Amino acid sequence: MNQDMEKVNLNQKFGLFSEHWSPKIAGELNGQQVKLTKLQGEFVWHKHDEEDELFFVVKGSLKMELRDKTILIEENEFLIVPKGIEHRPVAKEEVWLMLFEPASTLNTGDAESNLTKNHLDWI
Amino acid sequence: MNQDMEKVNLNQKFGLFSEHWSPKIAGELNGQQVKLTKLQGEFVWHKHDEEDELFFVVKGSLKMELRDKTILIEENEFLIVPKGIEHRPVAKEEVWLMLFEPASTLNTGDAESNLTKNHLDWI
Repeated sequence: MNQDMEKVNLNQKFGLFSEHWSPKIAGELNGQQVKLTKLQGEFVWHKHDEEDELFFVVKGSLKMELRDKTILIEENEFLIVPKGIEHRPVAKEEVWLMLFEPASTLNTGDAESNLTKNHLDWI
Repeated sequence: MNQDMEKVNLNQKFGLFSEHWSPKIAGELNGQQVKLTKLQGEFVWHKHDEEDELFFVVKGSLKMELRDKTILIEENEFLIVPKGIEHRPVAKEEVWLMLFEPASTLNTGDAESNLTKNHLDWI
Protein backbone atom coordinates (compact mmCIF):
# COMPACT_ATOMS: atom_id res chain seq x y z
CA MET A 1 0.00 0.00 0.00
CA ASN A 2 1.41 3.36 -0.93
CA GLN A 3 -1.27 5.96 -0.53
CA ASP A 4 0.81 8.21 1.69
CA MET A 5 3.35 10.43 0.10
CA GLU A 6 6.32 8.12 -0.11
CA LYS A 7 8.60 7.42 -2.99
CA VAL A 8 8.44 4.08 -4.79
CA ASN A 9 11.63 2.18 -5.61
CA LEU A 10 10.97 -0.11 -8.55
CA ASN A 11 13.62 -2.70 -7.75
CA GLN A 12 12.43 -2.94 -4.17
CA LYS A 13 8.82 -3.42 -5.25
CA PHE A 14 9.68 -6.01 -7.90
CA GLY A 15 11.59 -7.90 -5.23
CA LEU A 16 8.38 -8.44 -3.27
CA PHE A 17 6.66 -10.82 -5.68
CA SER A 18 7.48 -13.47 -8.22
CA GLU A 19 4.22 -14.50 -9.90
CA HIS A 20 3.60 -13.64 -13.52
CA TRP A 21 0.64 -11.81 -15.11
CA SER A 22 -0.58 -10.44 -11.79
CA PRO A 23 -0.35 -6.62 -11.75
CA LYS A 24 0.11 -4.79 -8.45
CA ILE A 25 -0.84 -1.16 -7.89
CA ALA A 26 2.16 1.02 -7.04
CA GLY A 27 0.64 4.47 -7.41
CA GLU A 28 -2.51 6.37 -8.28
CA LEU A 29 -2.97 9.84 -9.72
CA ASN A 30 -5.67 11.66 -11.65
CA GLY A 31 -7.77 8.51 -11.95
CA GLN A 32 -4.81 6.65 -13.44
CA GLN A 33 -2.76 3.92 -11.83
CA VAL A 34 0.84 2.82 -11.96
CA LYS A 35 0.92 -0.97 -12.00
CA LEU A 36 3.90 -3.30 -11.73
CA THR A 37 3.83 -6.77 -13.19
CA LYS A 38 6.16 -9.58 -14.17
CA LEU A 39 5.51 -11.37 -17.44
CA GLN A 40 6.73 -14.57 -18.94
CA GLY A 41 5.25 -16.43 -21.87
CA GLU A 42 2.37 -15.41 -24.12
CA PHE A 43 -0.62 -13.41 -22.97
CA VAL A 44 -4.02 -13.35 -24.71
CA TRP A 45 -4.98 -11.17 -27.65
CA HIS A 46 -7.19 -8.39 -26.36
CA LYS A 47 -8.07 -4.72 -26.61
CA HIS A 48 -9.38 -2.04 -24.28
CA ASP A 49 -12.35 -0.19 -25.74
CA GLU A 50 -11.96 2.88 -23.54
CA GLU A 51 -8.41 2.97 -22.24
CA ASP A 52 -5.03 3.80 -23.72
CA GLU A 53 -2.27 1.86 -22.08
CA LEU A 54 1.43 2.62 -21.52
CA PHE A 55 3.96 -0.22 -21.26
CA PHE A 56 7.34 0.72 -19.78
CA VAL A 57 9.94 -2.05 -19.67
CA VAL A 58 12.02 -1.98 -16.50
CA LYS A 59 13.88 -5.23 -17.16
CA GLY A 60 14.03 -7.61 -20.10
CA SER A 61 12.57 -7.36 -23.61
CA LEU A 62 8.85 -7.38 -24.32
CA LYS A 63 7.50 -8.28 -27.71
CA MET A 64 4.22 -6.46 -28.33
CA GLU A 65 2.35 -8.22 -31.08
CA LEU A 66 -0.12 -6.08 -33.00
CA ARG A 67 -2.27 -7.27 -35.89
CA ASP A 68 -0.07 -5.51 -38.47
CA LYS A 69 3.36 -5.49 -36.83
CA THR A 70 5.38 -6.49 -33.79
CA ILE A 71 7.29 -4.00 -31.66
CA LEU A 72 10.14 -5.09 -29.39
CA ILE A 73 10.17 -2.91 -26.26
CA GLU A 74 13.48 -3.04 -24.41
CA GLU A 75 14.69 -1.67 -21.09
CA ASN A 76 14.02 2.03 -20.57
CA GLU A 77 11.63 2.09 -23.49
CA PHE A 78 7.89 2.53 -23.52
CA LEU A 79 5.04 1.99 -25.94
CA ILE A 80 1.55 3.46 -25.79
CA VAL A 81 -1.16 1.19 -27.17
CA PRO A 82 -4.23 3.31 -27.94
CA LYS A 83 -7.70 2.15 -27.02
CA GLY A 84 -9.33 -0.17 -29.50
CA ILE A 85 -6.04 -1.63 -30.78
CA GLU A 86 -5.68 -5.38 -30.42
CA HIS A 87 -2.42 -6.40 -28.84
CA ARG A 88 -0.70 -9.38 -27.26
CA PRO A 89 2.34 -9.11 -24.98
CA VAL A 90 4.87 -11.94 -25.36
CA ALA A 91 7.89 -12.34 -23.09
CA LYS A 92 10.34 -15.07 -24.05
CA GLU A 93 12.22 -14.50 -20.82
CA GLU A 94 10.91 -12.76 -17.73
CA VAL A 95 10.03 -9.10 -18.15
CA TRP A 96 9.46 -6.51 -15.43
CA LEU A 97 6.88 -4.07 -16.62
CA MET A 98 5.48 -0.77 -15.35
CA LEU A 99 2.04 0.14 -16.68
CA PHE A 100 0.32 3.54 -16.68
CA GLU A 101 -3.37 3.33 -17.40
CA PRO A 102 -6.79 4.31 -16.05
CA ALA A 103 -7.68 2.65 -12.76
CA SER A 104 -10.62 1.08 -14.58
CA THR A 105 -8.43 -0.93 -16.98
CA LEU A 106 -8.92 -4.70 -16.87
CA ASN A 107 -5.73 -6.60 -17.69
CA THR A 108 -7.33 -8.82 -20.34
CA GLY A 109 -9.56 -6.07 -21.76
CA ASP A 110 -12.34 -7.58 -23.86
CA ALA A 111 -10.93 -11.14 -23.61
CA GLU A 112 -11.91 -12.33 -20.17
CA SER A 113 -10.27 -15.62 -19.28
CA ASN A 114 -8.56 -17.40 -16.42
CA LEU A 115 -5.85 -14.74 -16.75
CA THR A 116 -8.31 -11.96 -15.90
CA LYS A 117 -7.62 -10.15 -12.63
CA ASN A 118 -10.75 -8.43 -11.37
CA HIS A 119 -9.09 -7.26 -8.19
CA LEU A 120 -5.59 -5.86 -7.85
CA ASP A 121 -3.73 -5.39 -4.61
CA TRP A 122 -1.47 -2.49 -3.73
CA ILE A 123 2.19 -3.25 -3.28
CA MET B 1 6.72 14.06 -32.51
CA ASN B 2 5.52 10.65 -31.54
CA GLN B 3 1.83 10.42 -32.20
CA ASP B 4 2.10 7.29 -34.31
CA MET B 5 2.42 4.00 -32.58
CA GLU B 6 6.14 3.84 -32.07
CA LYS B 7 8.11 2.95 -29.00
CA VAL B 8 10.01 5.65 -27.14
CA ASN B 9 13.59 5.05 -26.02
CA LEU B 10 14.36 7.30 -23.06
CA ASN B 11 18.11 7.51 -23.58
CA GLN B 12 17.65 8.36 -27.24
CA LYS B 13 15.15 11.11 -26.42
CA PHE B 14 17.28 12.59 -23.64
CA GLY B 15 20.17 12.70 -26.10
CA LEU B 16 18.25 15.14 -28.28
CA PHE B 17 18.31 18.14 -25.96
CA SER B 18 20.47 19.69 -23.28
CA GLU B 19 18.51 22.64 -21.85
CA HIS B 20 17.20 22.49 -18.29
CA TRP B 21 13.65 23.08 -16.99
CA SER B 22 12.09 22.73 -20.43
CA PRO B 23 9.80 19.68 -20.57
CA LYS B 24 9.20 17.91 -23.89
CA ILE B 25 6.18 15.74 -24.61
CA ALA B 26 7.09 12.11 -25.30
CA GLY B 27 3.66 10.49 -25.15
CA GLU B 28 -0.02 11.13 -24.60
CA LEU B 29 -2.75 8.83 -23.27
CA ASN B 30 -6.10 9.25 -21.60
CA GLY B 31 -5.67 13.02 -21.38
CA GLN B 32 -2.35 12.56 -19.62
CA GLN B 33 1.11 13.26 -21.00
CA VAL B 34 4.53 11.75 -20.54
CA LYS B 35 7.05 14.57 -20.40
CA LEU B 36 10.84 14.40 -20.37
CA THR B 37 12.95 17.12 -18.83
CA LYS B 38 16.46 17.78 -17.58
CA LEU B 39 16.87 19.64 -14.32
CA GLN B 40 19.77 21.32 -12.62
CA GLY B 41 19.62 23.78 -9.77
CA GLU B 42 16.62 24.95 -7.80
CA PHE B 43 13.13 25.33 -9.22
CA VAL B 44 10.39 27.55 -7.76
CA TRP B 45 8.02 26.61 -4.96
CA HIS B 46 4.63 25.88 -6.50
CA LYS B 47 1.57 23.66 -6.43
CA HIS B 48 -0.99 22.44 -8.92
CA ASP B 49 -4.54 23.00 -7.76
CA GLU B 50 -6.07 20.35 -10.00
CA GLU B 51 -3.37 17.94 -11.01
CA ASP B 52 -1.48 15.16 -9.29
CA GLU B 53 2.03 14.79 -10.68
CA LEU B 54 4.36 11.81 -10.96
CA PHE B 55 8.15 12.30 -10.96
CA PHE B 56 10.20 9.35 -12.19
CA VAL B 57 13.98 9.76 -12.01
CA VAL B 58 15.76 8.26 -15.03
CA LYS B 59 19.23 9.55 -14.14
CA GLY B 60 20.65 11.31 -11.10
CA SER B 61 19.11 12.19 -7.73
CA LEU B 62 16.27 14.64 -7.32
CA LYS B 63 15.56 16.32 -4.03
CA MET B 64 11.86 17.07 -3.71
CA GLU B 65 11.36 19.70 -1.08
CA LEU B 66 7.96 19.74 0.59
CA ARG B 67 6.88 22.12 3.33
CA ASP B 68 7.20 19.43 6.02
CA LYS B 69 9.91 17.14 4.67
CA THR B 70 12.32 16.49 1.82
CA ILE B 71 12.31 13.31 -0.23
CA LEU B 72 15.35 12.21 -2.24
CA ILE B 73 14.21 10.45 -5.41
CA GLU B 74 16.92 8.35 -6.99
CA GLU B 75 17.21 6.43 -10.25
CA ASN B 76 14.34 4.05 -10.92
CA GLU B 77 12.27 5.63 -8.20
CA PHE B 78 9.14 7.73 -8.48
CA LEU B 79 7.16 10.06 -6.28
CA ILE B 80 3.57 11.20 -6.74
CA VAL B 81 2.90 14.73 -5.51
CA PRO B 82 -0.85 15.13 -5.01
CA LYS B 83 -2.67 18.25 -6.17
CA GLY B 84 -2.57 21.13 -3.75
CA ILE B 85 0.76 20.13 -2.20
CA GLU B 86 3.50 22.73 -2.44
CA HIS B 87 6.77 21.35 -3.73
CA ARG B 88 10.12 22.46 -5.08
CA PRO B 89 12.42 20.20 -7.11
CA VAL B 90 16.13 20.73 -6.46
CA ALA B 91 18.86 19.01 -8.46
CA LYS B 92 22.40 19.52 -7.25
CA GLU B 93 23.71 17.74 -10.33
CA GLU B 94 21.85 17.18 -13.57
CA VAL B 95 18.76 14.98 -13.32
CA TRP B 96 16.86 13.32 -16.15
CA LEU B 97 13.22 13.19 -15.24
CA MET B 98 10.12 11.57 -16.71
CA LEU B 99 6.84 13.19 -15.67
CA PHE B 100 3.39 11.70 -15.92
CA GLU B 101 0.61 14.21 -15.46
CA PRO B 102 -2.51 15.67 -17.11
CA ALA B 103 -1.85 17.41 -20.41
CA SER B 104 -3.19 20.59 -18.79
CA THR B 105 -0.42 20.75 -16.16
CA LEU B 106 1.67 23.93 -16.21
CA ASN B 107 5.26 23.32 -15.09
CA THR B 108 5.28 26.12 -12.52
CA GLY B 109 1.69 25.54 -11.33
CA ASP B 110 0.42 28.57 -9.43
CA ALA B 111 3.81 30.32 -9.48
CA GLU B 112 4.11 31.78 -12.96
CA SER B 113 7.56 33.17 -13.60
CA ASN B 114 10.23 33.33 -16.26
CA LEU B 115 10.53 29.56 -15.81
CA THR B 116 6.92 29.00 -16.92
CA LYS B 117 6.52 27.10 -20.18
CA ASN B 118 3.15 27.79 -21.73
CA HIS B 119 3.88 25.73 -24.81
CA LEU B 120 5.65 22.39 -24.89
CA ASP B 121 7.00 20.72 -28.00
CA TRP B 122 6.89 17.03 -28.76
CA ILE B 123 10.19 15.23 -28.92
